[in-house]
Amino acid sequence: MELLQVDLMDEAQKKLYGFIRQIPVRTKKVSLREGAYTRLAADIPAPEDVPLFNRSTVDGYAVIAADTYGASESIPTFLKVAEEVSMGKAAAVKLKSGQCAYVPTGGMIPEGADAMVMVEYCELLDADTVAVCQPSAVGKDIVCRGDDMKAGSVVLKAGTVLRPQEIAALAALGVGTVEVEEPFRTAIISTGDELVPVDHKPEAGQIRESNSYSIKAQAERAGMEVVSTAFYPDQEDELETGIRQAMETCDFVFLSGGSSQGKKDMTARLFDRVTDGGVCTHGLALKPGKPTILAWDETSHTVLVGLPGHPSAASIVFELLVARTLRIHRGQPYQPYVEAKTMYNIASAPGRGTCMPVILHPKESGLEAEPVLGRSGNWSILVKADGYFLLDHNQEGIKAGETVKVYLFER
Amino acid sequence: MELLQVDLMDEAQKKLYGFIRQIPVRTKKVSLREGAYTRLAADIPAPEDVPLFNRSTVDGYAVIAADTYGASESIPTFLKVAEEVSMGKAAAVKLKSGQCAYVPTGGMIPEGADAMVMVEYCELLDADTVAVCQPSAVGKDIVCRGDDMKAGSVVLKAGTVLRPQEIAALAALGVGTVEVEEPFRTAIISTGDELVPVDHKPEAGQIRESNSYSIKAQAERAGMEVVSTAFYPDQEDELETGIRQAMETCDFVFLSGGSSQGKKDMTARLFDRVTDGGVCTHGLALKPGKPTILAWDETSHTVLVGLPGHPSAASIVFELLVARTLRIHRGQPYQPYVEAKTMYNIASAPGRGTCMPVILHPKESGLEAEPVLGRSGNWSILVKADGYFLLDHNQEGIKAGETVKVYLFER
Repeated sequence: MELLQVDLMDEAQKKLYGFIRQIPVRTKKVSLREGAYTRLAADIPAPEDVPLFNRSTVDGYAVIAADTYGASESIPTFLKVAEEVSMGKAAAVKLKSGQCAYVPTGGMIPEGADAMVMVEYCELLDADTVAVCQPSAVGKDIVCRGDDMKAGSVVLKAGTVLRPQEIAALAALGVGTVEVEEPFRTAIISTGDELVPVDHKPEAGQIRESNSYSIKAQAERAGMEVVSTAFYPDQEDELETGIRQAMETCDFVFLSGGSSQGKKDMTARLFDRVTDGGVCTHGLALKPGKPTILAWDETSHTVLVGLPGHPSAASIVFELLVARTLRIHRGQPYQPYVEAKTMYNIASAPGRGTCMPVILHPKESGLEAEPVLGRSGNWSILVKADGYFLLDHNQEGIKAGETVKVYLFER
Repeated sequence: MELLQVDLMDEAQKKLYGFIRQIPVRTKKVSLREGAYTRLAADIPAPEDVPLFNRSTVDGYAVIAADTYGASESIPTFLKVAEEVSMGKAAAVKLKSGQCAYVPTGGMIPEGADAMVMVEYCELLDADTVAVCQPSAVGKDIVCRGDDMKAGSVVLKAGTVLRPQEIAALAALGVGTVEVEEPFRTAIISTGDELVPVDHKPEAGQIRESNSYSIKAQAERAGMEVVSTAFYPDQEDELETGIRQAMETCDFVFLSGGSSQGKKDMTARLFDRVTDGGVCTHGLALKPGKPTILAWDETSHTVLVGLPGHPSAASIVFELLVARTLRIHRGQPYQPYVEAKTMYNIASAPGRGTCMPVILHPKESGLEAEPVLGRSGNWSILVKADGYFLLDHNQEGIKAGETVKVYLFER
C-alpha cells in the first residue's frame, strides 16, 4: 500500500511557498493611482531629492542659529527682516548675520539660514525688525533637501507591496507609472454529481454549487485574479480536460471536490496524471481540512490545490494554507489577532491541528470567544463566526476560561 | 477669544460615527459574485431549507438506528441492501426494519432511515447483505433538512458585510442577486500654494501633491468610492467653490491642508461657512494629527474632514479616525494586533495620544518593535514602518523592553 504524505499545516505552507516563488513573474505598467496593493516589479531609485529644497516645518523666522545664542525674553536678539518667503516660491535673498526671513510652514529656507525660530518666540517690532526671544540650534525645525528621499537611493525594492504610503511616496518623487507584477491567474473548479448552478432549483439529492463563491471572493481578497470558475460532475476524463485547460493559462488551479474516499482518490489520481511533480501533500493534519491535496507542475509552473468538498472546510483551508502563504509572499508574515477567553472546553484532534470558528462577545473583563460547533458542511458556522482560533497538533485541548488568540475574518 | 474644541481620538470617533449613521443609504442590486465586502441593504430570509433533504456526511450505510443496537465485531447485525443511492439522485426506497442503503458522502438519506454507519464498520457479505459491526444512534452522521439554514428564517440581516462565507451561503440558498448599500462617495481635496501635479517638475519652493494619493488608496481600502481628487492653491473662494461642488454629490469631503496657523484657520472658517452644523472638532489630541477638523452638514448630509497637511500625519489620522470608524460601522469593532517589545524609550506627548510607527524585527524571544523617528512631513517614516503602536493621552510614556500592541499596515 502506498503511504500518503499527510502534512502539518506549516509543512504544507512551506511547500506552497516554494511553488509560489517558482511561478514566473509577469509584469505590467500601471498608472500610480491604479497600483495600490500590487507588488513592484523592479527596484525604484529616487530620480531626485525629496524635498528638493530646505523646508521649514513651522511658521516663523529663518535665522542663522549663531545669531540667536543667548537670546531670551529679557534680552532678545534683534534681527532685520530681509525677506518674507511665500509658499511655493523660491527664497530670493542670501541671509547674512543679523538678518532673518519670515518662512511659513513648508516654505523654502533662504540660503545662509540654518535654523528656524517659531513665530511664538518672536515679536515683530516694526516693518523690518524682529525680536527673537529664544535661542535656536542648527537644523532646528528644518527638513533638509533629500531628508525624506535621496536622489539615486533605492526607495522601494522589487517585490514591495505598494501600500498607500508607498503610492504617495512615489507621487512625491514624480513617478507617475509603475511596473508591477500581475496578479496570480487562478481557476476555481468544483466537482460533484450533486451540484447544480445557483439559479437552478435543486431536486432531491442535489445542492447548489457554492464553494466557488467563497473561494473566488477569498482569492480576490488575497490579491489573485480569478479567470474562471466552473463545476463538473465527477467524470474523471471531463474533469481532466478542464484542469488541463486551466493549467494552460493559470498559475493556480483549485479543485474543490467531495470528501468521500472515492473522490479524494480521484483528485489525487488526476493531479498525479496532469503534473510532472505529482502529488506532494496528500492530506492535511487539520480539523477540518483533512482531504487537502497539493501538487506542482514544473512544466507549466502551475500550483494545483485540492480543497475539501465541505463548504466551510474548503474556506478554512483556503484561509489557513493559501491566504496565509500569499500574505507571507506579500511581505506580511505576522498574523494579527485579538485575545479572548474561550467559553467552552475544546478537545484537540489527536495528531491534528484544529481550527475552531468563534463568535466574539465583549464583556467587562475583555473579550469572550464562543466556539461555533456544527458540521463543516454547513455555511452557517462561518456565517456566525467573527474569527477562529487554532489548536496545535500536539496541544492537549483547551479549557473554558483559557486565553486564545482569535484571528478575525475581515469585514 | 473663541475656545477650540480639541478632542481625544475616541471623542472624535464617536462624533464621526454619529455622522456616518446619518448619511442616507443608497442601494443598488448587484450579482452575487460582485457583492463581496459590500453591506447588505435588507434582511435576507432563507427562501428554502438548506439542505433540502437529509444528507449523509460519510460514506456508508443508511440504517434504522434501532436495528444496530448491540451490534459488534463478534455479533454483527445483518441487514439487506435495499438500494444504492447515487450522488445527486433521489433515494427511491422507503427503508424498513432489517434494510439498509448505501449512501456516499453528501448523498440523500432514504426515507425511513435515521442514522448512518460508516463503511469502515460494515462488511458487504454478498450482493445484498451487509454485516454491521458497530451500533449507530439516531441522527448520527446525518445533516438534516434545514440544518444549515431554515426556510423563512432571517439568515443575514441588513447591514451585514458580505464576507466570502456570506456570499457562499447566499449561493447555497439560490440568491443570485443582492441589494447592497452603495459605498460612501468621497471627494479628496488638497490645498497649498506650493503644490504641483505629480507629472510636473517642482521649482524651488514647490513640492508635488502626494496626500491625495495615500488618502485615495486608504479610502478605497476602507470601502469608499473616491469620485474625485483635486488640489487648489490657498485661495479661500476657489476652495469654497470646490468644497461646495463636492458636497453636492459626495458623502465625505476630505480637505488636506498645510498645517500652518493661517491655513488651519482657513479650513475651519470654510467648514463653518459651508456647513449648517459648523466645526465640531477643532483639533485632535494626537501626535501627529493635531490640526484635524470635523464638521457635519445636516442639509446635504456630508461629513467634512480636515486632515493635517503633513503627509504621514494625514495618513495616520485617516487610519486612526476614519478607517477605524468605518470598520466599526462595518461590524468589525475589534482591531487585531501583534505584540512586540519596543526597542527604545518613547516619551508621551503631554495631554495627547501618540501614534508611533514601528519596524518589526523577529527575534528568538519574539517580535521587537523599532520606533521610526522622524518628521511627520516625510513619507519615508511610513514607508519604513510595518505598523504602529499607540500611547494613550494619560500614559506616561513607555520604556525600552516593554510590550506594546502593534497594529499592522496591511499589505
